Amino acid sequence: MTIQLSVGPRVRKSPFYDASVAAGLSHATIYNHMYMPVAYGDPEAEYWRLIQDVSIWDVAVERQVEVWGPDAETLVQYLVPRDLSKFFIGQGKYVPVCDHRGVLLNDPVLSKLDQGRYWFSIADNDLLMWVRAVAAERKFNVSVTEPDASPLAIQGPKAEALISGLLGDWVQGLKYFWFQEADLDGIPLLVARSGWSKQGGFELYLLDQSRGTDLWNRVFEAGKPYNVGPGAPNYIERVESALLSVGADTDDMTNPFEVDLGKYVHTEIAVDYIGRDALRRIQDEGPKRRRIGVIVEGTKLPPNQHRWPVTLHGEQVGEVTASAFSPRLDQNIGLANVHADIADGAGLLVETEQGHRAATVTALPFITPPDQRKLGAPRT
Amino acid sequence: MTIQLSVGPRVRKSPFYDASVAAGLSHATIYNHMYMPVAYGDPEAEYWRLIQDVSIWDVAVERQVEVWGPDAETLVQYLVPRDLSKFFIGQGKYVPVCDHRGVLLNDPVLSKLDQGRYWFSIADNDLLMWVRAVAAERKFNVSVTEPDASPLAIQGPKAEALISGLLGDWVQGLKYFWFQEADLDGIPLLVARSGWSKQGGFELYLLDQSRGTDLWNRVFEAGKPYNVGPGAPNYIERVESALLSVGADTDDMTNPFEVDLGKYVHTEIAVDYIGRDALRRIQDEGPKRRRIGVIVEGTKLPPNQHRWPVTLHGEQVGEVTASAFSPRLDQNIGLANVHADIADGAGLLVETEQGHRAATVTALPFITPPDQRKLGAPRT
Repeated sequence: MTIQLSVGPRVRKSPFYDASVAAGLSHATIYNHMYMPVAYGDPEAEYWRLIQDVSIWDVAVERQVEVWGPDAETLVQYLVPRDLSKFFIGQGKYVPVCDHRGVLLNDPVLSKLDQGRYWFSIADNDLLMWVRAVAAERKFNVSVTEPDASPLAIQGPKAEALISGLLGDWVQGLKYFWFQEADLDGIPLLVARSGWSKQGGFELYLLDQSRGTDLWNRVFEAGKPYNVGPGAPNYIERVESALLSVGADTDDMTNPFEVDLGKYVHTEIAVDYIGRDALRRIQDEGPKRRRIGVIVEGTKLPPNQHRWPVTLHGEQVGEVTASAFSPRLDQNIGLANVHADIADGAGLLVETEQGHRAATVTALPFITPPDQRKLGAPRT
Repeated sequence: MTIQLSVGPRVRKSPFYDASVAAGLSHATIYNHMYMPVAYGDPEAEYWRLIQDVSIWDVAVERQVEVWGPDAETLVQYLVPRDLSKFFIGQGKYVPVCDHRGVLLNDPVLSKLDQGRYWFSIADNDLLMWVRAVAAERKFNVSVTEPDASPLAIQGPKAEALISGLLGDWVQGLKYFWFQEADLDGIPLLVARSGWSKQGGFELYLLDQSRGTDLWNRVFEAGKPYNVGPGAPNYIERVESALLSVGADTDDMTNPFEVDLGKYVHTEIAVDYIGRDALRRIQDEGPKRRRIGVIVEGTKLPPNQHRWPVTLHGEQVGEVTASAFSPRLDQNIGLANVHADIADGAGLLVETEQGHRAATVTALPFITPPDQRKLGAPRT
C-alpha cells in the first residue's frame, strides 16, 4: 500500500529540497515541520554506501534554537541536567532536555558559539516554544530564536577524506561535536564533527539558506572519488548502533536513565535545573524500565510498522520500538524498552506483524564501528 | 514528481488510520506527530461532496491538551487573551494562544468539560510542552496531559441529518462549539458542533482509541442515504471560507490582530495573561500587516507550492500563503498577508510558479455559506 506525501506550502522545504528531489528522492517524512528525505529508491545501496563509502544527507530538519544574551549561560544550564561548567567556545555537547517531572523531552547537541550564545540542534518537537516559555516566565534577559542554519550531513568512513578535500586538512583536527566556521567560496558554513550515525563524519551547517543547491553540488563533486551518493539517517544502521530516536523510542513517561542517558544527568551538582529533584528521586529509586537489544529469531522480517509488544510468560513487559534486518549480522535485531526486572530475559516473545517470535536479549550496540578512536569518541 | 510518504513506527497512526487506508487514502501529511489524510484520489469529488453532501474526515491529529486540577481556571485564563469569565460547562470557545511577545502560537478550540477541567483542541505544534512549561514554572496545581480523544469530523450540509440519524435529534440543539457526551452502542463519544469548514457539521471525539474502525463504519453506514464519502480538511474550501491555518498562514512574528483574530483579544480585562502588555501595545499602535483576499487573474492555476511574493510598484509588500482555483467562483483566489498601508491595493502583482499575475484585493471570506444562521454562528 502506497501513500503519496502531500507537498505544499504548509510544511517547510529544506534549502536542499530541490537538490534532493533532483537526486531521486523517493520517500520522505515530516520532522520539525519540514520535509525530511528518508530514501532514494535503493535501500540496500544506501545502507552499504553509509557503511563502506560516504553518504550525503539533507538533515536541515535538525533546526537550531539559539539562546543569546546576558542570561544565556544561566538559562542554558537551567534547561539541561548535564554539568556545563566546563564548556569551551567551539565545543558541542550532547544534552538531555527534561521537563519538571524528569521526563525526556529532547536530546539535542548543544553548541557553544560564543560566550552568551548557544545553539540547540534539536530532535522532532517544538523545543523553541519550551525554551521561550521558560525564559519568559523566569524573566531571563535572552533572545530565543531560530537562526538561518541548515545541517547537511556527510557520513561514512570516507567522509573525512571528502571533507578534507573540500575544506582542507584542518578538519581532521576537529574533535567529536566540536565545530569551526568555514567559507566555501562564499558559502558560509559551520563545520562540526557530528552526525546521526556511528560511521563517522561531519555536519556542514549551511548559514545561508539560498545556497543549498550550491553546497549540495560542491559536496557531490568532491565526493566522486569516494563513491558518494544521497542518503538519509539510516534505519538499519541506527538500530545496529543503538542510536536513540526521541519520540520513536520514548514516550510521555521516559526518563533519561531508562534509555542509557544517565551519564549525562548530573544530579550531584549544586546548580538548579529543570527536573533536578525528580531526577534525583528516580536515580535513588532506580529506573523502572531499561533499554535492551533483542535478536528476533526466524526468517527475515521487514522493519516494524508499529511498536511490537514484548511478553514474558504471557505478560507484556515492554515493547520493541525499532527493528530491522541487519545485513552485517544476518539477523533481525530490535531496540526494546522493558521492565527493569526481567532478569536475563530468557523466554521473551515479540509480537511482530508476522506473528510471535522468540527473542534473545543482547548488549547494545549490536555493532561497534571498527575504529571508534579514529572517529572521535561519540556523545561527549 | 511524486514522493512517497514514509510510514513507520516513529509517527503515530490515528485510530481511523486503517479505515482511511481501506477507504482509498491517496495523499497524507504529518500534523502533530501523526499521519493526517489529505486526499482520496479524486479532489474534485471530495470538494463537491463537502459543498453539497457530507464528508467524513479523520482529524485525530487535532490532539487535545487537558488541563485539570484546582488551578485549572487560573492557568487557562493566563494562557489566553480572550475573556473566559463567562464560560459554561459544555461550551467551547475559539481562543488565540499567544506568547509573551503577543505572537500567535496556536488557535485551539477550548472546551470546558467540567469545573477545573479543560481541553485545548490544537493546531500543529507542541502546545502541550508550552502549557506544561508555564504551569510548572508558575507552580500551578494542575495536571497537563493528552487524553484518549480523537476527533472524526462530519462536514457538509447533510452532516446534521446524518448525525441526527446516528445519535438522535438532540444533536440539532447543539450550538456552535458546544458539545455533549454520547454513547453509540458502547462507543464513547463527545459530540461537538464544530469542524474546520464553513459548510456546517460536527466533530465526534472518539474517547476509546481501540474503536476507530467501528465508529468510522457506523458513520459511513448512517451516511449512505446522504451520499457520504471520505475527505479531509479541504484546501479549496478553506481558502474560499478564509479559514486560518496557523503555521501555514502565520510566521514567527504574526500577532492575532494581523489575521482578523482581534475580536478574541480582550486587552481591557484586568486579569493578567501571557502577552497582555505586548498585545495592548500592538493594539494601540495598530498592526503592521493585515490579511486580505486576492483574486489572481488569468488562467487556472494549481494550488501554490510555496508562498507567493506580492509586489506593489516593484516592491514586495507581502505574500500569498494559500491559493486555489475556486470551482464555484471560477477564479484563482488567495489569502495574503500584506503591509497594512497598501491602501486599496490597486496594481498588486503576485509571483506565482507560472510567472507574474495581476491581483485584485477583495473582502474575506470569498464565499459565505447560504444559511449561516442554521449552521450556528461560527467562531463564538
